[in-house]
Amino acid sequence: MNDSVNRRIVLAARPQGRPGPECFRLEEAPLPVPAAGEMLARTIYLSLDPYMRGRMSDGPSYARPVGLGEAMTGGTVGLVVRSHLDGFAPGDLVVGRGGWQDYAVFRAGEAERVEPARAPITTALGVLGMPGQTAYVGLREIGKPKAGETLVVAAASGPVGSAVGQISRIKGCRVVGVAGSQAKCDFVTGELGFDACLDHHAADFEDQLRAACPDGVDVYWENVGGRVFDAVLPLLNPFARVPVCGLIAWYNATELPPGPDRVPHLLRQTLTRRLTIRGFIVSDFERGDFLTDVGSWVRAGRLRYREDIREGLENAPAAFIGLLAGENFGKLLIRIAPAPTS
Amino acid sequence: MNDSVNRRIVLAARPQGRPGPECFRLEEAPLPVPAAGEMLARTIYLSLDPYMRGRMSDGPSYARPVGLGEAMTGGTVGLVVRSHLDGFAPGDLVVGRGGWQDYAVFRAGEAERVEPARAPITTALGVLGMPGQTAYVGLREIGKPKAGETLVVAAASGPVGSAVGQISRIKGCRVVGVAGSQAKCDFVTGELGFDACLDHHAADFEDQLRAACPDGVDVYWENVGGRVFDAVLPLLNPFARVPVCGLIAWYNATELPPGPDRVPHLLRQTLTRRLTIRGFIVSDFERGDFLTDVGSWVRAGRLRYREDIREGLENAPAAFIGLLAGENFGKLLIRIAPAPTS
Repeated sequence: MNDSVNRRIVLAARPQGRPGPECFRLEEAPLPVPAAGEMLARTIYLSLDPYMRGRMSDGPSYARPVGLGEAMTGGTVGLVVRSHLDGFAPGDLVVGRGGWQDYAVFRAGEAERVEPARAPITTALGVLGMPGQTAYVGLREIGKPKAGETLVVAAASGPVGSAVGQISRIKGCRVVGVAGSQAKCDFVTGELGFDACLDHHAADFEDQLRAACPDGVDVYWENVGGRVFDAVLPLLNPFARVPVCGLIAWYNATELPPGPDRVPHLLRQTLTRRLTIRGFIVSDFERGDFLTDVGSWVRAGRLRYREDIREGLENAPAAFIGLLAGENFGKLLIRIAPAPTS
Repeated sequence: MNDSVNRRIVLAARPQGRPGPECFRLEEAPLPVPAAGEMLARTIYLSLDPYMRGRMSDGPSYARPVGLGEAMTGGTVGLVVRSHLDGFAPGDLVVGRGGWQDYAVFRAGEAERVEPARAPITTALGVLGMPGQTAYVGLREIGKPKAGETLVVAAASGPVGSAVGQISRIKGCRVVGVAGSQAKCDFVTGELGFDACLDHHAADFEDQLRAACPDGVDVYWENVGGRVFDAVLPLLNPFARVPVCGLIAWYNATELPPGPDRVPHLLRQTLTRRLTIRGFIVSDFERGDFLTDVGSWVRAGRLRYREDIREGLENAPAAFIGLLAGENFGKLLIRIAPAPTS
């Protein structure tokens, strides 16, 4: 890494279906110079998350797409190297949306301080960051898990799913995870304490899920869509809640699956079982007691997490492509610069 | 009508698709004798409502199906003729679930007194009864219309749709109705005061709807499904709410429509536009201030209604079959016995 150059990965082409390496381009740009009221941070960790697939397309969504030639968007933890922003000084660690690049400029309100004494700084991108907050507010506002209920969550070893399941366990639920390999399932039950975890590749996955949910499903946290959604739908109990947080199984789809059209069936189930199906993103809701609650659960060992850290900005595209195929195991991060020794 | 005989219409066969006359049978039974703690009421008005189609099938739903040979279920206003129930005496008017028959027995809690001085007794089955309460609680709990928002409701001249639209007008919304004929649309705009009303049979219905909703749709009250749902979906604004109250367009369907399967599309829209799609029935929520609020709006002429009253229990099957095809115009009621002159 050259300290006078800002390497960045830009969107080179919009993907048709599954993104390939040709969608990304590594560029070098001059180091940005922070103006008055701005600060410059050197990125240490870049977070890679499924929502980024949506930003690569220019269809309507909840956020504007990344422009062609623009740096890919993404959450980062960085070290302040220059500051003309009140309250921040060189040496501070900050979390913000720095993007896929070595350096980022932040204005007031665009970054928050990270306290390394409180928790490992990577958690600001995981369990104590956007994914953890997504789990926390989505359960509080939509999922509303109650003691004795059954919750199902897919991508259960990932940062959102693992928090969803463990928070719901703390609330007294039976929690059934779904993941993409036996190793992930073993981690989810063994380390995270879920009551069960099933591999969605199993030929008899639907039967396994039914057996794992003898009292039906009261909350289905929708991270994935696809086969898992289809398997859960017939198990939903009256008044079940379905927070729709992600649909990774369909993100690369270029056409709808063959018929019949099951929309009438889904709406009929919604009516007769009085389901609540509700989409959201983390910023729709107040953070509330998230940091206090989840921070205390993490410190008490009641909420665990796993990280999958890769080295080097240049490896972000391949890591992200793998993420969409479920190849990561835990919160996927790219280490772009060495973390400061504390 | 013979005063010692209880005529009743029973479910003779479960329908495959659209019910025909063969699904119903008029029988004569002895007059029921109320036991201690019961009262006997002679039915004056029987309410016919779309939900009854669901009760004719034995698939899972929110209520148990009517058994073969059992009297069809239904709301009624009746005159108490014998009472062994505290608080009720012969001559009282009561509303309850008397079913498709001349006489019904009620126990404590199964019927409520109707005050003819307050409003016409038919309103206990309409605007001040189950349909009006459905509109009131569904808007309060799910639709949450706010001033300046746009609400779309189909079956707009019917008892639920007309109340949904007028209550939302009172709340300050732009209200667009959908109905099945020009005469109904004229009534909906001219009498009920909706901002617009469109005939869903029009070849360019989708274009008309888009033009009638220049700011998109914030609340879509789902009464019907089918073509209206498809036309509204692309118009839904971020954070739109879709109370799913009925799906009459699909009630008689025996198979799903051809593909592609649009469930992934619907869930993707739910996520990216953060939609809330929620099924409910009236009894899911507390009545709250329904009678006070709607009663005052009715008395002030701010909430109007239309009734479509047919004569004779024997005509209930044909009237109900017509209801499922949209042939009624306003709240469909069967007059089974003369109303008392007051």
